[in-house]
Amino acid sequence: MSELGLIQVYTGNGKGKTTASLGLAFRASGHGFKTCMIQFMKENSDYGETKAAQYLPGFKLLQVGRNEFVDLKNPQPIDVELAQSGWKTAQDIILSKKYDIIILDEINVAMACGMIDCQEVADFLSGLKENRTELILTGRYAPQLIIDLAHLVTELQEIKHPFTQGVDARKGIDY
Amino acid sequence: MSELGLIQVYTGNGKGKTTASLGLAFRASGHGFKTCMIQFMKENSDYGETKAAQYLPGFKLLQVGRNEFVDLKNPQPIDVELAQSGWKTAQDIILSKKYDIIILDEINVAMACGMIDCQEVADFLSGLKENRTELILTGRYAPQLIIDLAHLVTELQEIKHPFTQGVDARKGIDY
Repeated sequence: MSELGLIQVYTGNGKGKTTASLGLAFRASGHGFKTCMIQFMKENSDYGETKAAQYLPGFKLLQVGRNEFVDLKNPQPIDVELAQSGWKTAQDIILSKKYDIIILDEINVAMACGMIDCQEVADFLSGLKENRTELILTGRYAPQLIIDLAHLVTELQEIKHPFTQGVDARKGIDY
Repeated sequence: MSELGLIQVYTGNGKGKTTASLGLAFRASGHGFKTCMIQFMKENSDYGETKAAQYLPGFKLLQVGRNEFVDLKNPQPIDVELAQSGWKTAQDIILSKKYDIIILDEINVAMACGMIDCQEVADFLSGLKENRTELILTGRYAPQLIIDLAHLVTELQEIKHPFTQGVDARKGIDY
């Protein structure tokens, strides 16, 4: 990728934030670009993206959470620890310059509920010099600090959702 | 896919509608599901998704437009013809029941500017019996008729966009 990388944010209560970033990885792989997706607060080998990761050349998926529901109002110490070590890993991967696109999936939520310090993330991102990696931050509740420094911010709004009509999450569609 | 398919709409002026549907296809392929994406008003072999389509097992991409900008206020007869024959193809593919997911990319725009009759699409979709195929309709300006019959509607809103700050569309990221 020849140009400077931008910082993109996908936030909002609508469906498709992680999905859109997966689509970016898919599309980018067609042009020979490399993408690394780091999933915070997730660890599940039954996700479609975990299984499909092998198909895309240059796509790497890292899950840095655990396979348990994180109580956002009161995260367990283990969850905080995993989120923070995941953020350290993410910084190393960004600084390695090995990828054209790096997706920090659900990091907005991890910041919003205090598991990762939002100011620290903002300082790190602002401090990147001549960054050529496209950085994608997904998740609800993107902190204002992050929105302020991002170049592209898209909010996904739920207009109508079947889960509220009694339909459960479905394999192959929702995960 | 065991359950009945839902009708999903991705609309709004924000980035990520086509991308989110590509992500859906990617994720679904991990579970062994088959996806067909029909792109209206597009025909470009340099798109990332065109090049990456080969990587995903069970993913088929059809471009039913031409490689020219469609004047939405005054579509050329050839564009109207391509959109309408594309819609016929789409109906055949839906009725063939060969796919778990079918994405009608940009069909909302084709309906909104009168290239495809919105009432006809609504009637066709409402008339599907025991439909097990997930149907995804993308594009700005989703007509109200379509929103009314969809089960899941997500609006992507542009909060901040670099194109308005003088950044052009970039290969591997935006197409």
